Amino acid sequence: MSNFRWALRIQFVDTDASGRIHYTAILRHFEKAEVEFFRDLGVPYNHITMKEISLPRVHVEADYLRALTYDDPVEIEVTVPRVGEKSFTLQFDVLHEGHLAVRGKIVVACMDRTTQRSCPIPARMKEELLKCVNSSQGT
Amino acid sequence: MSNFRWALRIQFVDTDASGRIHYTAILRHFEKAEVEFFRDLGVPYNHITMKEISLPRVHVEADYLRALTYDDPVEIEVTVPRVGEKSFTLQFDVLHEGHLAVRGKIVVACMDRTTQRSCPIPARMKEELLKCVNSSQGT
Amino acid sequence: MSNFRWALRIQFVDTDASGRIHYTAILRHFEKAEVEFFRDLGVPYNHITMKEISLPRVHVEADYLRALTYDDPVEIEVTVPRVGEKSFTLQFDVLHEGHLAVRGKIVVACMDRTTQRSCPIPARMKEELLKCVNSSQGT
Amino acid sequence: MSNFRWALRIQFVDTDASGRIHYTAILRHFEKAEVEFFRDLGVPYNHITMKEISLPRVHVEADYLRALTYDDPVEIEVTVPRVGEKSFTLQFDVLHEGHLAVRGKIVVACMDRTTQRSCPIPARMKEELLKCVNSSQGT
Repeated sequence: MSNFRWALRIQFVDTDASGRIHYTAILRHFEKAEVEFFRDLGVPYNHITMKEISLPRVHVEADYLRALTYDDPVEIEVTVPRVGEKSFTLQFDVLHEGHLAVRGKIVVACMDRTTQRSCPIPARMKEELLKCVNSSQGT
Repeated sequence: MSNFRWALRIQFVDTDASGRIHYTAILRHFEKAEVEFFRDLGVPYNHITMKEISLPRVHVEADYLRALTYDDPVEIEVTVPRVGEKSFTLQFDVLHEGHLAVRGKIVVACMDRTTQRSCPIPARMKEELLKCVNSSQGT
Repeated sequence: MSNFRWALRIQFVDTDASGRIHYTAILRHFEKAEVEFFRDLGVPYNHITMKEISLPRVHVEADYLRALTYDDPVEIEVTVPRVGEKSFTLQFDVLHEGHLAVRGKIVVACMDRTTQRSCPIPARMKEELLKCVNSSQGT
Repeated sequence: MSNFRWALRIQFVDTDASGRIHYTAILRHFEKAEVEFFRDLGVPYNHITMKEISLPRVHVEADYLRALTYDDPVEIEVTVPRVGEKSFTLQFDVLHEGHLAVRGKIVVACMDRTTQRSCPIPARMKEELLKCVNSSQGT
């Protein structure tokens, strides 16, 4: 079973006066890859889910290994290093011409919109995330 | 009576690979100038107002006359060309070293959050906006 | 001959606290549609062209007709209302569920990177743009 | 000797449909605080320096401890946890109503624009950064 990958090109608005991508721009693309990853899993971040819970990011980190520039085609591979009771971690590997250009991680918490407090990951979402963890450990 | 001006510097994240400001970045600064303009008028876009009405933009336009680059100090002058019943127009003149670099306009509609339909501009806000229209016509 | 359309979904980062898309976010998507439009025409904004000329925007305008929200699928249709000697106009119609949600226009100037002055549109690009003008006038 | 702090308000464009700040938006403000921190140190990221070296970010991380919303006044305190030969680390503490809301760190590398390889931190910049390290260790 292969991991989920989302293909895109670096946009002009992503660049800055250095001529390369601005370091924050790739985070917008992580979010896009995340949304499509969950749609692909069959548990889309749809409007119904979003009314009951929200998914604030409590941690982000990224390492920038190679410069990316305007119009570079990249693929973002999404994997799941950890699934907890009330939060999970996603990893984003940005691949360009066969090389890892950026590696990022985010920790996503589940929050009940009514109480504004952390809450368990919805059962169906957790089940699918756990399959991804096992899949990557098995390889 | 002088017009409201908001001073800022062009940020690095505002630039793109052309080495100059990306054309969309100045619009973020228009919004900042708008918020401070209303605070200065005494009718801040505060949380209470925002719960009852929202202020969607129904039109935007901008002319780019001179290039701006990273760290350029600019002033954004906010004026009020028009106040209608349910919408108003704001003009933003971006000045750099005594020259007009960008001129923008936005048309802002008032929308009732409950009905999701257009509604009259709140009385106090309208009163203050009308003073600005008269002020600029008198000069 | 049908017009060029670029399909995408409104991203979460595109939204603001009103719950709808921030008015500036659609402009980032116009730029993406523009880049893919030129790639489709066979005259990509590639690195070689970008070294000789740059394409600053000298005017932008947009009308917002319907609200868009997170994850809405839209198509952006790109047409060419005008081709001049040293500048051209592109129109972007954002379609959602069969309705026009946003209509935008940008005026793009050609600038010689060496002299930093306006210059004629490259011949091959102009030729392709003119075909688009004629195509839409013929319908 | 007190640390450098940069005051600002959370902008509307910084928010997303959750009603709170989008996690990437605070990174734009880190960059603004960074630029003003260096101006305050007397070693501004000015145009001359930027022609010789560039300062790509090789690592970023942030922890989000409290939600921020539109118009919240915050202060960003900039400190210098580490100064190496060819890179340095900056820390950004975002304070709101006396509480730490976000803590971020970036690792900035010095790169020679001509060779496109890492290079030593300019002497004057390094000297000033080292003073900041010692200052915070002394407290």
